[in-house]
Amino acid sequence: MSATRRELFGPGPTNVPASILSALAAPTIGHLDPEFLELMDLVSQRLRYAYQTDNPLTFVLSAPGSIGMETSLVNLLEPGDTIIICINGVFGGRMKEIASRVGATVITVENEWGTPVDPDQLEQTLKAHPEASVVAFVHAETSTGVRSDAKTIAALAREHGCLAVADCVTSLSGVELKVDEWGIDVAYSGSQKCLSCVPGLSPITFSAAAVERIRRRTHPVQSWFCDISLLMSYYETGEKTRAYHHTAPVNSLFAMAEALRLVEEETLEKRWDRHLQAAAHLYQRLESAGLEPLVAAEHRLPPLTLVKIPPDADDAGTRGALLNQRNIELGGGLGKFAGKAWRIGLMGENATPERADYLVDALLEVMKAG
Amino acid sequence: MSATRRELFGPGPTNVPASILSALAAPTIGHLDPEFLELMDLVSQRLRYAYQTDNPLTFVLSAPGSIGMETSLVNLLEPGDTIIICINGVFGGRMKEIASRVGATVITVENEWGTPVDPDQLEQTLKAHPEASVVAFVHAETSTGVRSDAKTIAALAREHGCLAVADCVTSLSGVELKVDEWGIDVAYSGSQKCLSCVPGLSPITFSAAAVERIRRRTHPVQSWFCDISLLMSYYETGEKTRAYHHTAPVNSLFAMAEALRLVEEETLEKRWDRHLQAAAHLYQRLESAGLEPLVAAEHRLPPLTLVKIPPDADDAGTRGALLNQRNIELGGGLGKFAGKAWRIGLMGENATPERADYLVDALLEVMKAG
Repeated sequence: MSATRRELFGPGPTNVPASILSALAAPTIGHLDPEFLELMDLVSQRLRYAYQTDNPLTFVLSAPGSIGMETSLVNLLEPGDTIIICINGVFGGRMKEIASRVGATVITVENEWGTPVDPDQLEQTLKAHPEASVVAFVHAETSTGVRSDAKTIAALAREHGCLAVADCVTSLSGVELKVDEWGIDVAYSGSQKCLSCVPGLSPITFSAAAVERIRRRTHPVQSWFCDISLLMSYYETGEKTRAYHHTAPVNSLFAMAEALRLVEEETLEKRWDRHLQAAAHLYQRLESAGLEPLVAAEHRLPPLTLVKIPPDADDAGTRGALLNQRNIELGGGLGKFAGKAWRIGLMGENATPERADYLVDALLEVMKAG
Repeated sequence: MSATRRELFGPGPTNVPASILSALAAPTIGHLDPEFLELMDLVSQRLRYAYQTDNPLTFVLSAPGSIGMETSLVNLLEPGDTIIICINGVFGGRMKEIASRVGATVITVENEWGTPVDPDQLEQTLKAHPEASVVAFVHAETSTGVRSDAKTIAALAREHGCLAVADCVTSLSGVELKVDEWGIDVAYSGSQKCLSCVPGLSPITFSAAAVERIRRRTHPVQSWFCDISLLMSYYETGEKTRAYHHTAPVNSLFAMAEALRLVEEETLEKRWDRHLQAAAHLYQRLESAGLEPLVAAEHRLPPLTLVKIPPDADDAGTRGALLNQRNIELGGGLGKFAGKAWRIGLMGENATPERADYLVDALLEVMKAG
């Protein structure tokens, strides 16, 4: 069985550069091989650059982005703790679900889908809940294409003595993100978005304050797989006697090392700007074709654009025709936006004006024919 | 960074055939692409063959084998439940750790490392604990190279009204395993052992009784990522409207489809026999060189052989020389057997008398030189 080559303009995965696929297929080595331990150090170092952090505890979890979310929350929260979760789309809602399962009290700050987290509302909530110990929010909402002001949110959390957890699944290396400067305590992401790597990994970083919180826990983390204390000693001390925890997905990490090398080679600033320019070109093309972005200009997330489905267009029919006739994947709406918006990803490899043209040209032709 | 080609004779990963690496590196497609959904169906069907089961809920978890263990236990157990865990090595111990974190009462049946689970002891324990609802055991202990009698253990569990959970990480496709015939309720494995696939995935299967137990839960599963009820509807009804849960590791599943195709092509019976013949040849070679297998002949696990480190041999030195001079990975001892035994894997691709010779020849040369 060989899959058809697709052009991936949905919410991720995006297309994966040949050098990353080639790294992926290198002969497997052991997860305790000294060469693999070196590779993990290299990945950690490159990831610190991508996150703009000096956190020693910066590494790649051996499962998709959702495990980043779960790992962040189950390690920082104990039963009875209070967390404030900002919800403006599907992924904030998922954070609530996970935190509830820990036995934490969840206070929500809810904003309309398609709008960012409102810092004033968060501030009021922080004042009303001095018992809160964590603020969690989504930097880049993949369900709505909205970017929230991570810098301001993290600063508010800190002012009120809370740790800040940021979902950076669709922001890492695609839009400005400065973990240390902004004071984010835990940030996690996915491999298959702006890093343009294969899906299945979740890069994560923990601040010293987050590590301290984990050390002071009085209950064991409910998940053995997600228990960061079982991995911490390695990353903190830099010891080469890495304790065996689980068998790392060696080949996927070969791919991640290459994906992060490409980020370093390009530089973050240029990569952020490339995503911005590609998105600007996309907006222009959409607007001149009479297609309306769903999110107000100032809150749009460059790597992922939501566009309203015109009243006379057939949602599934258009996406089906793009896929079957053109081998182009366009994202459908998720949750409240199902049937109402398309999600157009211009991430990683695909974040160029030329790729935006390729997608819009095909979309317009298919809509005209349909 | 390009890793050195290694010959992998440790406890896994093992060497990955070229056709699997090539499948792995196929261009990424979306996790909701109809072609990917077809691939998941195909993987599920092939996996049912490998497990010898008709269970509809048979699929591949998006993380390494440890997540198979955690998923099995956190879905079957609720706080206050009683589980009997058979411990005869590291992985039984890990089951205990995970079940304790669920808030279950853990009763253990402990047997010496290097010996199998004792069915009589299990039976006494089952009689003494009629409140137990689950029996968990390791079919193939990767830390000791012991195979336990899964058929008898599962039958005892059933007689006493318990579900049987089997860790098949180092048995799936490498030694006889018949999930339905033996009455195993949950079996999980890892991709990187006898399947000879890349590390990072955990194939799992749930019986109807296990599904029923999960449906009757009164507490949500503590882990959102591991909550099988969020995935169950798809696999049970065969509906094509797969709900989005997380982004599947698409490329790794390409590889898994190919790995399972190779199993089907060879047939399970021939593959089990191949592992057996390779191991028989290995025992012969080891014994004629004066090296002593650690496990009694009748309890040995063909894919993984523990051999006592001779008193005059240097454990780390020998393994280091093999790795650095010959690019051969030999497994060190784990837990109680660290420094006392080497672990020799002849799994998947490497389960042939020729590969056994390759390893033993190199080992003897290095030991002689050292």
